[in-house]
Amino acid sequence: MISVEQAIKQMQSHARPVCKKELVTIDQALGRTLFSAVMAPINVPPADNSAMDGYAVRTNEIALNTQYQISQRIPAGKAPDPLQESSVARIFTGANMPAGADAVIIQEDSISQNNQVQFKSLAVVGENVRKCGQDVRKGSEILPAGKVLRPQEIGLIASCGIAEVEVYKKLRVIILSTGDELVEPGQKAKTNQIYNSNRFLLKSFCEACGFETIDSASMPDELNQTISSLEKAASQADVILTTGGVSVGEEDHIKPALKQLGSLDMWKVAIKPGKPIALGKIGDTDLIALPGNPSSVFTTFLILALPRLRLLQGRSDMEIIPEILSANFSRAAGSRKEYLRARKTSQGVEIFPNQSSGVLSSACWGDGFALQPQDTAIESGQLVEFIDYQRLMQR
Amino acid sequence: MISVEQAIKQMQSHARPVCKKELVTIDQALGRTLFSAVMAPINVPPADNSAMDGYAVRTNEIALNTQYQISQRIPAGKAPDPLQESSVARIFTGANMPAGADAVIIQEDSISQNNQVQFKSLAVVGENVRKCGQDVRKGSEILPAGKVLRPQEIGLIASCGIAEVEVYKKLRVIILSTGDELVEPGQKAKTNQIYNSNRFLLKSFCEACGFETIDSASMPDELNQTISSLEKAASQADVILTTGGVSVGEEDHIKPALKQLGSLDMWKVAIKPGKPIALGKIGDTDLIALPGNPSSVFTTFLILALPRLRLLQGRSDMEIIPEILSANFSRAAGSRKEYLRARKTSQGVEIFPNQSSGVLSSACWGDGFALQPQDTAIESGQLVEFIDYQRLMQR
Repeated sequence: MISVEQAIKQMQSHARPVCKKELVTIDQALGRTLFSAVMAPINVPPADNSAMDGYAVRTNEIALNTQYQISQRIPAGKAPDPLQESSVARIFTGANMPAGADAVIIQEDSISQNNQVQFKSLAVVGENVRKCGQDVRKGSEILPAGKVLRPQEIGLIASCGIAEVEVYKKLRVIILSTGDELVEPGQKAKTNQIYNSNRFLLKSFCEACGFETIDSASMPDELNQTISSLEKAASQADVILTTGGVSVGEEDHIKPALKQLGSLDMWKVAIKPGKPIALGKIGDTDLIALPGNPSSVFTTFLILALPRLRLLQGRSDMEIIPEILSANFSRAAGSRKEYLRARKTSQGVEIFPNQSSGVLSSACWGDGFALQPQDTAIESGQLVEFIDYQRLMQR
Repeated sequence: MISVEQAIKQMQSHARPVCKKELVTIDQALGRTLFSAVMAPINVPPADNSAMDGYAVRTNEIALNTQYQISQRIPAGKAPDPLQESSVARIFTGANMPAGADAVIIQEDSISQNNQVQFKSLAVVGENVRKCGQDVRKGSEILPAGKVLRPQEIGLIASCGIAEVEVYKKLRVIILSTGDELVEPGQKAKTNQIYNSNRFLLKSFCEACGFETIDSASMPDELNQTISSLEKAASQADVILTTGGVSVGEEDHIKPALKQLGSLDMWKVAIKPGKPIALGKIGDTDLIALPGNPSSVFTTFLILALPRLRLLQGRSDMEIIPEILSANFSRAAGSRKEYLRARKTSQGVEIFPNQSSGVLSSACWGDGFALQPQDTAIESGQLVEFIDYQRLMQR
């Protein structure tokens, strides 16, 4: 058995972006990955402007309790004239500073009458002025290639006047479930059938992470049909995700099929829930084989498969740093690193009572994993690592 | 000025779900909010089944190093016959247990030959058996109304055989930007214009949070046009989000327009970036007026507007509990609670150098807010609260 850390490393090896680029408008770019760095064609803001409603002044001309002529009025969007000597300009938030002015005195500190104003306080140079280029400098790189676009990045790109960006095409993922016992939701199940939940779990994960899923039915537990399903899938997608059939039993056909079609690395990973995981290749298409139990699929997708999928998509992610929380539970040591389905509370972290790999309710109940290291018991009150599910799916 | 906590409370008052229900298939349900609780029509799993490849046995019949007849073979999906006395059944992961059997001995602990098997270890009752209903009990509520559907909830619903769920229709949000200085990305900006970034920031936020946005152009800084824009918007949407024009200056028309069209509560909130925020009503439509600076929009949307939008959407959220991290920065006290755009590191939390409300880069640089309480300095090394952006947008 290899450790979770080794498995993550293996999963990330030889994982170069497989997707081509495409040009999308910024209102279609949320969650997409930048193919090229975004450079600023302009300064933001493009000129010095007022941060407040007030009066644009030459600070060295202003004294307290003295009348000044208001020589112009500058609402946002209007081109100011140069500031006349010994005068001030009425100015509003967002309006460009008139040439010659070096600060804004806010209207709350002024008394105005008949186009004249006097001030109750002075300003220092630069006060209430947003400097040209303070957010973005013309010619600078505002976002690197590989960055996933969140709402704030879309806003920043828009602020530079850019309406389209080059992003990676979406990674195309096919999901294949194995198991003769599977029936699709909405159909009538016979006595010995169970509903296919893994397909919907993985499809939703891919959608949430910004990949394109090419759907597919489940595969029967039969070698030749497994081979032809995998072969067809490889011609359609960048990645094949399978669930189940990855063990070494007589009813597990993924491994022998892969041996005929391409290459295969299979590991027993010291992860719970989980354990047998495979990474293979059919032509240029990656195959990631996950276990069959829903909680194992949930866990191994987030912890092992997703880091590889991100790299294939071209993403350069921020590091995930676990939270350190007090355990509101005790648990005996186990031989694998355990990803306990957990919930953060104001007291620390608590875990779902039934951590069986067959119990998907455990993942719905909470908001993250509490980590139990291999061969290590956890006593109540002890500090443990916690990773938010949302954070693992970071955009 | 009211505190952030008071403002959040005000924002959440009288916020009942405004959306009707609709039926969607589970592959369209990601990120949607349940209108009705989901009840389990079946047990999951529907019958006792084997958690491993091995042999189904009657534990009280089994001794070590004794030959047993293999009386049947049960792959997953096959209907088992009752277990014949003094025999065992070859069984595979996911296959239903035969009547009479009470445990599974894994194949690794067996030696088989010619349809006979002997065991190297014994099993206790229930070992390697997944009990009928261990994940979901028939008739129980598996998910409450108000729950947002993440991938794991979609998987759980699928596991019960349910193909469609009743969700709230998406909240319809109109975004109106005020400001004569605004020009849209992709167009040529004149000297005194700046690009509209708030519209794209808010549109992306709404998309990321699962709301429907009805787009709209920016409004000129003129009272009658503000009135007609707001009136039209109110007839189209459940919520109007505006940016800018919410202060009390001569160029701010949101407040006088609202007074003519409906009701308005405006507060100065002790939040930085931010400050003037308004909540109003035009007929049945909510209006939330945010400030004009991009970082203020970013912050007040996440902290003040979003909790209300969630309630209008029908969501019952999990509480957001900040992380406690060591500050890798010092900062003088301020008169408002400050939401510093920050980044979590393995050493603690660091902040973007320029925290000006005009600087949206600050939000792109990091992954969350470090919170600085009102009238409180922060010394390097001190513990501060940190909230992940992703967590604020939780699904």
